[in-house]
Amino acid sequence: MGLMGVLLLVFLYPLSIMAFTVPIFFPKLHSQFASLNQAPRLKPKIPYETRYYPQLLDHFTFTPRSSKGFYQKYLINAQYWRNGAPIFVYTGNEGDIDWFAANTGFLLDIAPKFHALLVFIEHRFYGESKPFGNDSYSSAETLGYLTSQQALADYAVLIRSLKQNLSSEASPVVVFGGSYGGMLAAWFRLKYPHITIGALASSAPILHFDNIIPRSSFYDAVSQDFKDASLNCYEVIKGSWAELEQAFSEEGLAELSRTFRTCKNLHSVSSVRDWLWSAFVYTTMVDYPTEANFMRPLPAYPVQEMCKIIDAFAPETSKLDKVFAAASLYYNYSHGEKCFNLENGPDMHGLSGWNWQACTEMVMPMMCSNESMFPPSEFHYKEFALDCEKKYGVSPRPHWITTEFGGERIEQVLKRFGSNIIFSNGMKDPWSRGGVLTNISTNIVVIVTEKGAHHVDFRSATKDDPDWLVEQRRQEVEIIHQWINEYYADIKQDKKFI
Amino acid sequence: MGLMGVLLLVFLYPLSIMAFTVPIFFPKLHSQFASLNQAPRLKPKIPYETRYYPQLLDHFTFTPRSSKGFYQKYLINAQYWRNGAPIFVYTGNEGDIDWFAANTGFLLDIAPKFHALLVFIEHRFYGESKPFGNDSYSSAETLGYLTSQQALADYAVLIRSLKQNLSSEASPVVVFGGSYGGMLAAWFRLKYPHITIGALASSAPILHFDNIIPRSSFYDAVSQDFKDASLNCYEVIKGSWAELEQAFSEEGLAELSRTFRTCKNLHSVSSVRDWLWSAFVYTTMVDYPTEANFMRPLPAYPVQEMCKIIDAFAPETSKLDKVFAAASLYYNYSHGEKCFNLENGPDMHGLSGWNWQACTEMVMPMMCSNESMFPPSEFHYKEFALDCEKKYGVSPRPHWITTEFGGERIEQVLKRFGSNIIFSNGMKDPWSRGGVLTNISTNIVVIVTEKGAHHVDFRSATKDDPDWLVEQRRQEVEIIHQWINEYYADIKQDKKFI
Repeated sequence: MGLMGVLLLVFLYPLSIMAFTVPIFFPKLHSQFASLNQAPRLKPKIPYETRYYPQLLDHFTFTPRSSKGFYQKYLINAQYWRNGAPIFVYTGNEGDIDWFAANTGFLLDIAPKFHALLVFIEHRFYGESKPFGNDSYSSAETLGYLTSQQALADYAVLIRSLKQNLSSEASPVVVFGGSYGGMLAAWFRLKYPHITIGALASSAPILHFDNIIPRSSFYDAVSQDFKDASLNCYEVIKGSWAELEQAFSEEGLAELSRTFRTCKNLHSVSSVRDWLWSAFVYTTMVDYPTEANFMRPLPAYPVQEMCKIIDAFAPETSKLDKVFAAASLYYNYSHGEKCFNLENGPDMHGLSGWNWQACTEMVMPMMCSNESMFPPSEFHYKEFALDCEKKYGVSPRPHWITTEFGGERIEQVLKRFGSNIIFSNGMKDPWSRGGVLTNISTNIVVIVTEKGAHHVDFRSATKDDPDWLVEQRRQEVEIIHQWINEYYADIKQDKKFI
Repeated sequence: MGLMGVLLLVFLYPLSIMAFTVPIFFPKLHSQFASLNQAPRLKPKIPYETRYYPQLLDHFTFTPRSSKGFYQKYLINAQYWRNGAPIFVYTGNEGDIDWFAANTGFLLDIAPKFHALLVFIEHRFYGESKPFGNDSYSSAETLGYLTSQQALADYAVLIRSLKQNLSSEASPVVVFGGSYGGMLAAWFRLKYPHITIGALASSAPILHFDNIIPRSSFYDAVSQDFKDASLNCYEVIKGSWAELEQAFSEEGLAELSRTFRTCKNLHSVSSVRDWLWSAFVYTTMVDYPTEANFMRPLPAYPVQEMCKIIDAFAPETSKLDKVFAAASLYYNYSHGEKCFNLENGPDMHGLSGWNWQACTEMVMPMMCSNESMFPPSEFHYKEFALDCEKKYGVSPRPHWITTEFGGERIEQVLKRFGSNIIFSNGMKDPWSRGGVLTNISTNIVVIVTEKGAHHVDFRSATKDDPDWLVEQRRQEVEIIHQWINEYYADIKQDKKFI
C-alpha cells in the first residue's frame, strides 16, 4: 500500500503542529489549512478492519455523567496473527486514526516476523471517536473529557477487553506511537506495565514541558537544520522577516501579493509570515531521506532542497523572492498550484482538539532566541493563560503533565524504575530537543539518528531507505524481540512453578 | 504520646472494615457503631501541626466543575527535619487523618534517625477534607469524585507543592501507608515514581480484586487464626450460628436478649450475628502481640484470649453463652459496659465513604467456604451491583482496579518493572491473603511475620514488643536507608557530570 492515497488527507488534521498552536503569539500555523477542512475526505486505503468499542466517558470519577458511553474507533489487522502471538497497538494521537495507520507502515512491515496482531486505536475526541458527536467541541463541558490520562485509560480498557474477546490473554502487548502518540506510548508503559510489556516511542517530546528544556530549543533546532544545509540559506530566511515587515503599506501589500502569487490581494503581512513559517517548520520536521508525503508531497531531504533553491538566486535578489521560492517547494512540489490562498484568517472552526489540549494540560512553552532564524520572541505565560481562558473558559494547568507523568530528572528517576521503552529520535526533527536522547538504563534505551526526522522509523520501508534507517529499524525490531522472548520465558518459568 | 487519647475515636471511622461493607449480603459489621457516630469527637493528642492545601476537585478532566477547589487537610511535623533531608509521607486512607497519625507512631519513632519531615495527608472525602462540605455524601454528583486515582493525584500535587514551598525539591520522598492506605502507598510508587523514591505498604491487600485470590481467603484466614488458637474454640464458634438461628421465636429472642445482656429487647437474631461476626473479625485483624487500642482496647494476642474464654467453659454449656463471653472481650475489655446495644439497625447515616468506594471501584468479592467458622455463603455479583445501583445510582466497575493498577500475574509484571516497594504483612491478619507475600525482585520485597496482624509494624514501639516485631521494623528501616542512600548517591553523581 502506498501513501499516495492520503494525498489530500494530510490537510485535514492538525497532527504534529502541536508547537504551533501552543505558542499562541506565534503565527497560527494551521490557518492556511482552514479552508481545506471542508474538503471531501479521501479515505486512505489501508488493510485494516474498522471496529468500534463502547468506551466510558470518564474513567476517574463516578458521577452520573461519567458513565455516559461513546464509541471509540479502532483498526485491526489479523492477517499475520495467530492466537497467543504478540499484539502491537498503536496509541493514537491527535487525529483520524486512519491517517496514522497509513503513515505507520512500519507495523505492517514487521507484523509477519512476529505473527503480530495489529491494532490502531483512535484517540478520544478525534476522527470518529467523538463522545458528544458534533457537539464534542462545543464547550469545556464536553471538551473537558479530552485529556491524555483519559486517553491512556481508554487504551487500557480496550486492550484488556480485546484480549479477553480474542481468548488470548497471554499475548504480550507492545505499544507504538509517534509524536504525541509516542508520548502516550511511553507514558502507557510507565502507567500500565501490567497491560503492555514495552513501548516504542518515536519522536516523543515528553520533556517539552515546564522548564525541563530551554524554551528556545524547538526553533533553535529548526534554525540549526537550515544553517547545516547552508549558512547563506539561514541568513536569507533570518533577514526576510524585516523585509516582510516593510511591506505594510497598500502598495507594499500589492507587491507582496504579486511576489507570493496570491489568489486574492493580501490585507496584512502576517498571513505571509505564517505561511512561510509553516513551510520552514513542517519541512524541517519531515526532512526525510526519501521522497515522501506525510504533511505534503516533498522530495528527499527537503531542507537541503529549499536551501539549494535559495542559494541558486543571485545575491542581490530580494530575500522575499528567495523565501517564496523556497516555500513553494513545500506548498507546490507537485506543481499543481497556480496561485496560493495565504489569507484564510485564523481558524474559524476554532476548537480543534489539539488547541484545547495545548490550552489545558499540554502547555509547551516556546520562544525564539536571537540565534534563531525567526524573529525573537518570548513566552508570556500570563497572556497565554488569559487567551486560553477567553477561548475555552478554563485555565491551563502548566505543571500538571510533569506532576502526572514526570520528566524532571528523568534519567535519575527511570534509572531505578521501569523498563522496556525505546525512545527513538531523529536529530533533524526539531521535536527531538524535547525527547529523551541518552540511554537511561539497560532496558530504557534511546536510538538517535543524526539524519532522521519526525518518526521516520515508523514509515513503510522503501528501496531508497538509507542504511542508517534500515539499521535503526533493525535495532528496534531486535529489542522488541528481546522483550517478547523474555516475556514468553517468564511465562514458561511461571508455569513450571505452578 | 500514648494511644489512650483515641479511646473513643476508634468508633467513629469505618477504617479497615473494608471487607465488611463490600459483601453486602454479609452482616453490616459497622452497624453497631452507628449510634456512636454522634459521639463527641475526642481529638487524639498528636505532635503535628494541621494545615490545609487548596486542592482541585478533578485532576483528570477540565470541565468547568473540575477546577472547583477544596481544602485538603494534612499534618506536618518538622521537629526532626533539616532542609534536604527525607520527607516521609503517610498516604491517608478512609478516615480522619488524625486517627492514622495517632496509630502510626512508627514514623515518629524513626524520624529522628533520618532527620525526616513527617507529613500525613488526609484522603479526600474523609475527615475535614470534604470537597462539598456537609453535602459531600449527598449523591453521586458529589461522591463521584471520591476515587483512589483522584486521591493519588491529590498526594502528587500536594507533595510537589510542599517541596517547592520548603525550597527542598531535592528531598527524597518515601510514602507509607497501612491497609487501604498501604494500597495507595504501593500504587503511588508505581504511578508516581518521579515523586516518591519508595513505598512501605503495610497490610495492603492489593490482590483482593477480581479473581486474583480465592474469594473465601479472608474468612478462611479468620477461621484459621481461631483454629490455630484452639480447635474447640473454632468448633464452638462454627456451631454457634445454628444455635442462634433457632432463637427466632419471641421466647427465643427474649432469652437471647438475656444471654447477650442487651440494653433493649432484641427484635431479630441478625443483629446478634453481626455483633459476633464483628468481634471475631476485628479481633483477628488486631491480634497484636501487646496490649493495644486500635479498634478498641484489647489484651495482647486477643484471639488466644477469646479462645481461652471459650475453652474454659464446661463442654455442655450452650455455645451462645460461650461466644457471648468471647465477644465481650472485644466489646468490654475495660469492663465499662453494663449492657450492650446490639440493635442499631443498618447504618442510617448511610453514605459512609468506604461504602461508596466499595460500591464503585473497590469491589472485593468475598464469600465463606464450608471450612470457615462462619455460615457458608456465595458472592453474587449481580445482586451486589443491583444493591449499589439502588443505593447510589451508579454501577460498580468490578474490573477497573485491576485495569488501572494491575494485580494479575503481579510477580511477572513487577519482576521487570518498578522498584523500591516493601510489602509487609502479618499472617494473623486476614487481609494478608490479599497481599503480596513473596519477593518479586531484589528491590520489590516482602516482609512477612507469622505472628503479625494488621499493620502492626506501624504502631509505636513499646517495651513489650516481641523480637520478631523489633526485627521487622529494623529491616524496614534498613531498606529505607538503602533507598535514601542510593538516591543521594545518584544526585551526587549527576552533579559530577553537570
